[in-house]
Amino acid sequence: MSLLVVGSVAFDAVETPHGKIDRMLGGAATYFAVAASYFAPVKLVGVVGDDFTARDAAVFRGRPIDTEGLERASGKTFFWSGRYSADMNDRTTLVTDLNVFGEFNPKLPDRYRTAPFLFLANIHPSLQLNVLRQMARKPKLVALDTMNYWIERAPAELEMVLHEIDILVINDAEARQLSGEHNLLRAAARIQQMGPKILVVKRGEHGAMLMQKDSIFSVPGMTLAKVHDPTGAGDSFAGGFMGWLAKAGKVNDRTLRTAMVYGSVMGSFAVERFGLERLRRLKRPEITARARQFRRLTQFTL
Amino acid sequence: MSLLVVGSVAFDAVETPHGKIDRMLGGAATYFAVAASYFAPVKLVGVVGDDFTARDAAVFRGRPIDTEGLERASGKTFFWSGRYSADMNDRTTLVTDLNVFGEFNPKLPDRYRTAPFLFLANIHPSLQLNVLRQMARKPKLVALDTMNYWIERAPAELEMVLHEIDILVINDAEARQLSGEHNLLRAAARIQQMGPKILVVKRGEHGAMLMQKDSIFSVPGMTLAKVHDPTGAGDSFAGGFMGWLAKAGKVNDRTLRTAMVYGSVMGSFAVERFGLERLRRLKRPEITARARQFRRLTQFTL
Repeated sequence: MSLLVVGSVAFDAVETPHGKIDRMLGGAATYFAVAASYFAPVKLVGVVGDDFTARDAAVFRGRPIDTEGLERASGKTFFWSGRYSADMNDRTTLVTDLNVFGEFNPKLPDRYRTAPFLFLANIHPSLQLNVLRQMARKPKLVALDTMNYWIERAPAELEMVLHEIDILVINDAEARQLSGEHNLLRAAARIQQMGPKILVVKRGEHGAMLMQKDSIFSVPGMTLAKVHDPTGAGDSFAGGFMGWLAKAGKVNDRTLRTAMVYGSVMGSFAVERFGLERLRRLKRPEITARARQFRRLTQFTL
Repeated sequence: MSLLVVGSVAFDAVETPHGKIDRMLGGAATYFAVAASYFAPVKLVGVVGDDFTARDAAVFRGRPIDTEGLERASGKTFFWSGRYSADMNDRTTLVTDLNVFGEFNPKLPDRYRTAPFLFLANIHPSLQLNVLRQMARKPKLVALDTMNYWIERAPAELEMVLHEIDILVINDAEARQLSGEHNLLRAAARIQQMGPKILVVKRGEHGAMLMQKDSIFSVPGMTLAKVHDPTGAGDSFAGGFMGWLAKAGKVNDRTLRTAMVYGSVMGSFAVERFGLERLRRLKRPEITARARQFRRLTQFTL
């Protein structure tokens, strides 16, 4: 089944202990779409400026990614620049030039409005709600990503959109901030009362947790020989996760757990090279092999 | 098969967000022995002072714990006091009174010297080596715990004892410090060159990893509704881990993985109440049930 993503397309400059890239294609919707496209057809909504060339667009070509919804506005594309700490667990934002993304007002092409799977990447909660309003019918599954910025600056709008979604994808610090609870079990219970019945809690190198009312699933981080660039890891995770669910076509405890593993697989590939370098050149057998690696990593008998 | 542990027996005073206890029985060897005793017979070597009463010793009674090796010296028992941070991920040591533990010179009773499984809890590396020298024959398995203090103050002695052990049990920060490598895969490879072919890396609320040359196993932390007191969690983990291996009687990838789960089970119980309160009153079905909970927590199909 098809999967709609709404979010940022950007140019990034990053500096990590392994190198420095002055300009590379990035943005949440880009990472998400490329990762998800290995599993299901993707429809993309975003905005780029005049500086977004055919060469940049090549990342979407040859994949089941529909870019009719990728608006071209006059001006420059969203630009973000950041520097990672020595252990890459923290990063400092150096530049955020919203450019055309500052006026982003997502408009869904008609054929997008019936997509059964919807991912609202990290943008203003009002825009997320606005996208939901444009759907012709209630999607089978709506997942949403947000961040501390919106939890602090747009709590009322965030509360409204949370009422209407199924899955919230955030990191553990944000789950604690949003709920006001340090204990993750209580934090999840509070957030579930706000709307989303399912929480996906990203924990960086420590993996991720799926928290449903009566079931918790935990997938560890893959220990990698080299982590070159953590940029886009969370969005690649979300892409693999939602992509798998759209491929499965149904959402239950079993498909959700498998989706968590494929999310982890895509996140683990994303960080191995700068930007989309690794993610865009994956072969299907590599994905399968890494999923099996996650099985070996976690398998035991009692 | 029987399991020998050498380490501290202490009185602790702790303060956590859930309360304050002025004096409770603790120490690495105590937590280890009680946790391990649910799986295998334990022989204990440690030292206590005149203030260690029959009531304190009751924690070992009615269990398969041999305390012939628990020396009674004149003076006071080791006393440690600490305060945990609001999220309990950090702690500040307020008092360390070594007392009789300052002169601890472990002496193994004759019948201890043939124990096939040996755990050297966190004490001076020279004393750990001294214990190894007292064994009548090479044990089937020797595991060792250490800490940043010895990595910094007794690196030469630590290096010597590392040569002679099979399993090193440490936390991730210590693995990085000992190896000088931030990346955990490279850190493990370095440490494996120092002697121990197997690493057990404890990661607090994030669980633990078993790192062998050709296999990595990761067990997540159990998300608990209440964590009252993290004191002794690591030693309880080690007790469950070594206890299971001693019970299994053989050490291979399969038994090691199961041992990691039972270690996590015992660690997760330990933190639910202050000190040994929860650990000493466990029922076997509770242990089995929690091990199954770890299975549900990690189980998926591809």
